[in-house]
Amino acid sequence: MVEPAIRYRLIKKEKHTGARLGEIITPHGTFQTPMFMPVGTLATVKSMSPEELKEMGSQIILSNTYHLWLRPGANLVEEAGGLHKFMNWDKGILTDSGGFQVFSLAENRKITEEGVHFRNHLNGAKMFLSPEKAIDIENKLGADIIMSFDECPPFNESYDYIKKSIERTSRWAERGLQAHKKPAEQGLFGIIQGGGYKDLRLQSAKDLMSMDFPGYSIGGLSVGETKEEMNAVLDYLTPVIPDEKPRYLMGVGAPDSLIDGVIRGIDMFDCVLPTRIARNGTCMTSKGRLVVKNAKFERDFRPLDENCSCYTCQNYTRAYIRHLFKADETFGLRLTSYHNLHFLINLMNQVRQAILDDNLLEFREAFIEEYGYNQKNAKNF
Amino acid sequence: MVEPAIRYRLIKKEKHTGARLGEIITPHGTFQTPMFMPVGTLATVKSMSPEELKEMGSQIILSNTYHLWLRPGANLVEEAGGLHKFMNWDKGILTDSGGFQVFSLAENRKITEEGVHFRNHLNGAKMFLSPEKAIDIENKLGADIIMSFDECPPFNESYDYIKKSIERTSRWAERGLQAHKKPAEQGLFGIIQGGGYKDLRLQSAKDLMSMDFPGYSIGGLSVGETKEEMNAVLDYLTPVIPDEKPRYLMGVGAPDSLIDGVIRGIDMFDCVLPTRIARNGTCMTSKGRLVVKNAKFERDFRPLDENCSCYTCQNYTRAYIRHLFKADETFGLRLTSYHNLHFLINLMNQVRQAILDDNLLEFREAFIEEYGYNQKNAKNF
Ligand SMILES: [Zn+2]
Ligand SMILES: [Zn+2]
Repeated sequence: MVEPAIRYRLIKKEKHTGARLGEIITPHGTFQTPMFMPVGTLATVKSMSPEELKEMGSQIILSNTYHLWLRPGANLVEEAGGLHKFMNWDKGILTDSGGFQVFSLAENRKITEEGVHFRNHLNGAKMFLSPEKAIDIENKLGADIIMSFDECPPFNESYDYIKKSIERTSRWAERGLQAHKKPAEQGLFGIIQGGGYKDLRLQSAKDLMSMDFPGYSIGGLSVGETKEEMNAVLDYLTPVIPDEKPRYLMGVGAPDSLIDGVIRGIDMFDCVLPTRIARNGTCMTSKGRLVVKNAKFERDFRPLDENCSCYTCQNYTRAYIRHLFKADETFGLRLTSYHNLHFLINLMNQVRQAILDDNLLEFREAFIEEYGYNQKNAKNF
Repeated sequence: MVEPAIRYRLIKKEKHTGARLGEIITPHGTFQTPMFMPVGTLATVKSMSPEELKEMGSQIILSNTYHLWLRPGANLVEEAGGLHKFMNWDKGILTDSGGFQVFSLAENRKITEEGVHFRNHLNGAKMFLSPEKAIDIENKLGADIIMSFDECPPFNESYDYIKKSIERTSRWAERGLQAHKKPAEQGLFGIIQGGGYKDLRLQSAKDLMSMDFPGYSIGGLSVGETKEEMNAVLDYLTPVIPDEKPRYLMGVGAPDSLIDGVIRGIDMFDCVLPTRIARNGTCMTSKGRLVVKNAKFERDFRPLDENCSCYTCQNYTRAYIRHLFKADETFGLRLTSYHNLHFLINLMNQVRQAILDDNLLEFREAFIEEYGYNQKNAKNF
């Protein structure tokens, strides 16, 4: 029996919620949970350097198997010495399975028991992805944490469809586990699906837990359902996952959703939100969102967030960043990307402190109030 | 009499050429010459942070008066505390006068003795720039070194036209000198014009030197004339500029032209070349230019330049940078911009050492050979 690549250590449970303070031990360092992972889709967190990510406290980032498979290709990354070396990042990396992209980006999709035939979104070429192929690609990329190949059906797909889908996803998970060639170097997580159907979610979880993965992901959320629906799924799902396994809620990055996920026992999050909105000049601040391109910031010589200690806020004004955006200067999106990523990483630092202090619900209330989620017409992040 | 903002100290002349080792003392630090200034047109050196510029050894950067006047406006920069504070750069800044852009970018241009009426290139609005207005803008921007407003006629314009032009430019220089409100904080340079006509160049120089500027710029070169024509102008022009005044060759950044300029007594250069070509993935290396997007670099795991000590070359491969460019990831142009700027700054470090060692001509020969300028079909930089 090989020593598993990934271990989770539970440090403390918060008194009044399901929140957990812990750490995940990986071949590229130990990181504190709950935590947020910046997304580096194509082996780069858009506009950021590895040094900047470390400076803001990133301990692990996510890269996308589907995208890297297309460009530059898994074999090339393997020849380069793996993803860590290729992109000059010596901390943790997690890769997804490609399933989500196959079901959201690709065209002419045809699902069989064997896998999925599709045409890729770049040049329409015919491609095929299976559990074995996904694991093979992920083995070549060499991330510390890798994902099983899953189908990610729409939240409101019919009961019958989702039942068949999760049963197939469980069979795919079993095949991926068998295909995984580097269990001592890469920890493989199973992905729980099941849409909004409680019994299917629980069945999916039970199937996967019988295979004893070193961690469990929750997929198929943050795909258009309401926050209440998402929280309801977490409410009944996380209690059935063993304490000693990390839980990763995929694709969630809105500040309130992070806190609500932690309250329900989630340890890991990732999302393109902070970098995606940063490219339009939209910033998350302690007082809610700020669209720095707005005319009202033309002569505003305050930082993006007066309560923020990040590189951007310590050195630049709203007026300067607005100017950079108006002039299409890429340094502007470096500054907003840095700030937004720092904001979520710092939010998780505060959340961990609140778990230690057993006052996470009070923290949530104050944060939500300050951020403006209670206001009429509050934006959805 | 105010103490001038800018002083030049000649340290050593190279034995076999007109090359000078020296330093320029400014309100934001003393920098070694000969040197190359990165261009930060809109108060940002494209894609680079101030910290990165310092790390690679930049001591002074250039910003463009015309562009900053249009966006975000001189009054806004002044309200922000000046350009240094606005862009978070505490080392030297030089601003040009706007003349070059008015004559190369603007439309419906009409030159009068008073100044130039034109429509700007962004929205076609009617504008007017005069010597007094240019200095007023530059005073508000607050750079350490500022330029007189000049006309920059084409190199091969008629003798009669250029004669009238330089006489007007001399009158404009005198008016700018009178209008300059901050001589103790900002050093104003006169700009020598005259196209390819020796007597006009010498007349322009004589006119300007009678006004005793703290430094002299040479404009109207690198605008389409051959390198031989450019060098010929420098050959007769620099000897008439007093030893104790710095000489700035505007808009020149090709490696061989830098060396050839230094040999003819030039102390300062600026050019958009390194950052402009970097955005297309073209790199200057010790072995000539390298277009990193080329297919032959797909699996090339060497650095851009095996002889380079820069951040990019110490940490990333051609294969990775090519991947970033193919995937339109902005981190790619950060890496090539860093490398190209470092290349020219490092070239000037080597040039200064060669002046100290009195072997600049040998250095030139070896560099030209290694860079490939002697090869058939050698590219023009
Ligand atoms: Zn900040
Ligand atoms: Zn380099």
